[in-house]
Amino acid sequence: MKKKIITVSRQFGSGGRTIAKALAEKLGYAYYDSALVEEVAKETGFDPSYIADAGEYAPGKSILSYAFSSAAPHASGKLIATDYLWSAQCRVILELAEKGNCVIVGRCADYILRDREDCLNVFIHAPTPYKAKRIVELYGVTDKSPEKRLEEKDTRRKVNYKYFTGREWGLTENYHISLDSGVLGEEKCVEIIADVVNKLD
Amino acid sequence: MKKKIITVSRQFGSGGRTIAKALAEKLGYAYYDSALVEEVAKETGFDPSYIADAGEYAPGKSILSYAFSSAAPHASGKLIATDYLWSAQCRVILELAEKGNCVIVGRCADYILRDREDCLNVFIHAPTPYKAKRIVELYGVTDKSPEKRLEEKDTRRKVNYKYFTGREWGLTENYHISLDSGVLGEEKCVEIIADVVNKLD
Repeated sequence: MKKKIITVSRQFGSGGRTIAKALAEKLGYAYYDSALVEEVAKETGFDPSYIADAGEYAPGKSILSYAFSSAAPHASGKLIATDYLWSAQCRVILELAEKGNCVIVGRCADYILRDREDCLNVFIHAPTPYKAKRIVELYGVTDKSPEKRLEEKDTRRKVNYKYFTGREWGLTENYHISLDSGVLGEEKCVEIIADVVNKLD
Repeated sequence: MKKKIITVSRQFGSGGRTIAKALAEKLGYAYYDSALVEEVAKETGFDPSYIADAGEYAPGKSILSYAFSSAAPHASGKLIATDYLWSAQCRVILELAEKGNCVIVGRCADYILRDREDCLNVFIHAPTPYKAKRIVELYGVTDKSPEKRLEEKDTRRKVNYKYFTGREWGLTENYHISLDSGVLGEEKCVEIIADVVNKLD
């Protein structure tokens, strides 16, 4: 079946977002990333900067802090907000998918769209030295080592994914194609995915 | 860098072995699978049928049975035999890789050859209904459900891989390319991998 929707999940620093953008251009598909965040923001009334963080990271933080706290999770209202945001995000992604051909980066879109047979799920990863070099070039140096920054960000993505989907983030069987961008190169990754999309009927 | 060695790891029933064989033919590479077992057999003096099982499954069984046993693992000599067989298997795979371009199925070859930069590691997986249908067609019906047979075999592969490599079997980051043969089709998988091998310099 022709794949009209491509979801791209990615390790931090792997270039997955760049690959997704180039892929959307090559295929002539719509590209949803920060634009998607704004869509959700409009719908929920949350502050966009909160949503940018919460969409992929916040629940993880909440879960970890609740795990070591005697307070009931809902006492602070934070999990209620998170769950409400999740519902809104699901609705927006389901609606965007209805609009037509598109590439969606992150945000558990692979899981949210799991009932659609026209959805191709991609995972992009890379060796740590490649990602470390890349994030320093892109985002500069901080007081934390690049390796620590990579680990922290992906751990939060992992916990978030598990919390909302019950699945393991980064496990081959959750994606139709997983590629090592460090070894294959970003351009080759775009080419492989575009080729699959163009040839599957 | 041109990839001269392709290792193919696969879920039971995913068609990974068939894909590997077709890939070797398409590329004009040597193909090692049961032939590899015989190589190891000749070198170690073990019975080939023992090796066929032990190369991918036996340690898992040993570990599980020892975990619930008060006997010291080495008392039976089984783990010593397993470790000896592992060393022999490593030696054979390293030597085969030296011989020239090849495709190697299973046997932790991705890990054994991890220091070679001319090695491309592939993982083939598929949805359970696809694999269940396939193993019944290929191997017939048994008193166990196909789903149970799939689970048992892959659990043993997982434990075996973890025991010898310390890595998680089926985690995207251990392979350069992971493909869902159920959704993409076996032919398309061969095409994607061959294309990567032919175009990487």
